[in-house]
Amino acid sequence: MSYERDNIHRMAGYTWGEQPRNPGTIKLNTNENPYPPAPAVKAALGSFDVSTLRTYPQPTADGLRDRLAAMHGIARDQLIVTHGGDEALRLAMTTFVDPGAIFGMAEPSYSLYPVLAEIQDARVVKVPLAGDWLPAKDFVDILNDAGARLACVVNPHAPSGMLLEADAIADLARRFHGVLLVDEAYVDFVDPARNHDLVSLTRAFDNLLLLRTFSKGYSLAGLRLGYLIGAPALIEPLVTKTRDSYNIDAISQALGEAAVGAREYAAETWRQVREDRERLRHGLARLGLEAPHSESNFLLARVPVGSPLDAAGVYAELKQRGILVRYFAVPRLDDQLRITVGTAEQNQRLLDELRSLLS
Amino acid sequence: MSYERDNIHRMAGYTWGEQPRNPGTIKLNTNENPYPPAPAVKAALGSFDVSTLRTYPQPTADGLRDRLAAMHGIARDQLIVTHGGDEALRLAMTTFVDPGAIFGMAEPSYSLYPVLAEIQDARVVKVPLAGDWLPAKDFVDILNDAGARLACVVNPHAPSGMLLEADAIADLARRFHGVLLVDEAYVDFVDPARNHDLVSLTRAFDNLLLLRTFSKGYSLAGLRLGYLIGAPALIEPLVTKTRDSYNIDAISQALGEAAVGAREYAAETWRQVREDRERLRHGLARLGLEAPHSESNFLLARVPVGSPLDAAGVYAELKQRGILVRYFAVPRLDDQLRITVGTAEQNQRLLDELRSLLS
Repeated sequence: MSYERDNIHRMAGYTWGEQPRNPGTIKLNTNENPYPPAPAVKAALGSFDVSTLRTYPQPTADGLRDRLAAMHGIARDQLIVTHGGDEALRLAMTTFVDPGAIFGMAEPSYSLYPVLAEIQDARVVKVPLAGDWLPAKDFVDILNDAGARLACVVNPHAPSGMLLEADAIADLARRFHGVLLVDEAYVDFVDPARNHDLVSLTRAFDNLLLLRTFSKGYSLAGLRLGYLIGAPALIEPLVTKTRDSYNIDAISQALGEAAVGAREYAAETWRQVREDRERLRHGLARLGLEAPHSESNFLLARVPVGSPLDAAGVYAELKQRGILVRYFAVPRLDDQLRITVGTAEQNQRLLDELRSLLS
Repeated sequence: MSYERDNIHRMAGYTWGEQPRNPGTIKLNTNENPYPPAPAVKAALGSFDVSTLRTYPQPTADGLRDRLAAMHGIARDQLIVTHGGDEALRLAMTTFVDPGAIFGMAEPSYSLYPVLAEIQDARVVKVPLAGDWLPAKDFVDILNDAGARLACVVNPHAPSGMLLEADAIADLARRFHGVLLVDEAYVDFVDPARNHDLVSLTRAFDNLLLLRTFSKGYSLAGLRLGYLIGAPALIEPLVTKTRDSYNIDAISQALGEAAVGAREYAAETWRQVREDRERLRHGLARLGLEAPHSESNFLLARVPVGSPLDAAGVYAELKQRGILVRYFAVPRLDDQLRITVGTAEQNQRLLDELRSLLS
């Protein structure tokens, strides 16, 4: 006999990104930062007092929370630190969406969202994005008609890199009747010249949550640190009720503080990634693989009709040659590849292999 | 307007143990190990390559998982590593208990259990323990009549330290119609002469889960590491479906492996704690505070009727004097104090203060 709940029994679970066994593999499939964490993070680890691990960590990571709040010009009660962005998404689902209720999302986007909805036994309404990967005009109307309690929008969008401006986000939040979570996993890579900052919107809209992560911008995917920004009334139940009591271990709190303190180092990696992204985009275009402008650390490149290999074939051949990129076998994406921007050398290796595969 | 689900809006959340601001406080309130983690854990932290944090951790902590499975003589698929025992308890609730369904527990026990049930919008059946803190004879019948899908039993019991033998656990598992989770948070402190080991029972009973933690036995409460042992069919949905995709960060995986490798060091702390526990128990008895035999790292001591101070008063006065113990303002426990076994020096300080308070 099975002891699982029926909805758990029926569901399949999340498929995580491929992890190569060969350390020589060029890993351009899961949007990790190609540069290591800041030297200050290494120093913080070196000076961490292991004997303090004997006791429980500060339950709400208040040291890190206060540093992040100060960085964003907000108060402590407008922010919760989470065990990666994954925990933040799970908490939003647990706190705001009843079993049987509706969760809304744009399609395509992060494949974890519907998995979390299945665990909660919520129903998912997927609204297709328009041709330019922006939300369709009736996006909010469809969600409101369905009675969605929570909706997630990735911005910059994955897998396209398209950025929705603050005005457009404000319009979504204003019209949506549920909680709007904007997943800003890649926001650190947005060109600073665009002055893109949604934090002030969380004062204007009591239903808006912003999700940030240390995984990409701060080169700390291995550490599991993220946070949510929102109105105190949205943050409070996550902090005091639905979060695991000690959700951030003591080492992660210390290293997170060091990473925030070394934000200038991280910002230099973002600048470098932006520069290399444009070089890679032009290199791909010269090979016939057009990618739309991206404000993130990846490109969505289309394998042209008539190529010797289709997208699935290019993915497989690159893998044979020690380069992992992401291929999605789903409608609207199955003729494209999502390619993380690597170091200049890695990007060049990719271009060289593509040239030999496609010519 | 509130966006929280009704059950979340109604609930209060978990109250974590007091954390003193003064580092000189003697902290005997949350059952932490008084000794630091093994030198091998410090060495593992010192040699950890920070640059690897750039990429996602191994999703299922297989290195640590395999070490733990080998230690227990089981296969990898009988074990899941969790972010502290808290995550294990939450996953059991999420996976096996539908909203509206019944969760069963003995009373008194860990105050987190009903909080997790409230988050899941499950109903809680609390069955009072017998006078000796053992499950009442009709414990399982009451749970089965209520249709409980999951039940948690702490063993050794907290806050009493009473140990239920393997035969008695087998009897509960055999008769219970749901999943029985035995929370073995304190099992490392059980006298090895008792040959207490429930792992073999998980082969006999497809509804039995054992919860272990690194927090107490391995002096790693600050790190958040735990694990569950059970039949593959119970473990599989936790690993592939309800767990956050990267639930164990890369540093915790490395330090956990080092801690398991240095189990002999930890076992020496357990021996020392047992020895000091008996000395403390006799010292308390000489002051009139009787505590039943404990197989854990704490004692439940009764403040005798007619003392100058009641239990609440002793707790408050000890706190004034820089010693934290645990007082529960609930029926059956409000005349007692749960006292974690500290170092020999800490225990003596406690006895000295108690002598001056109670004479």
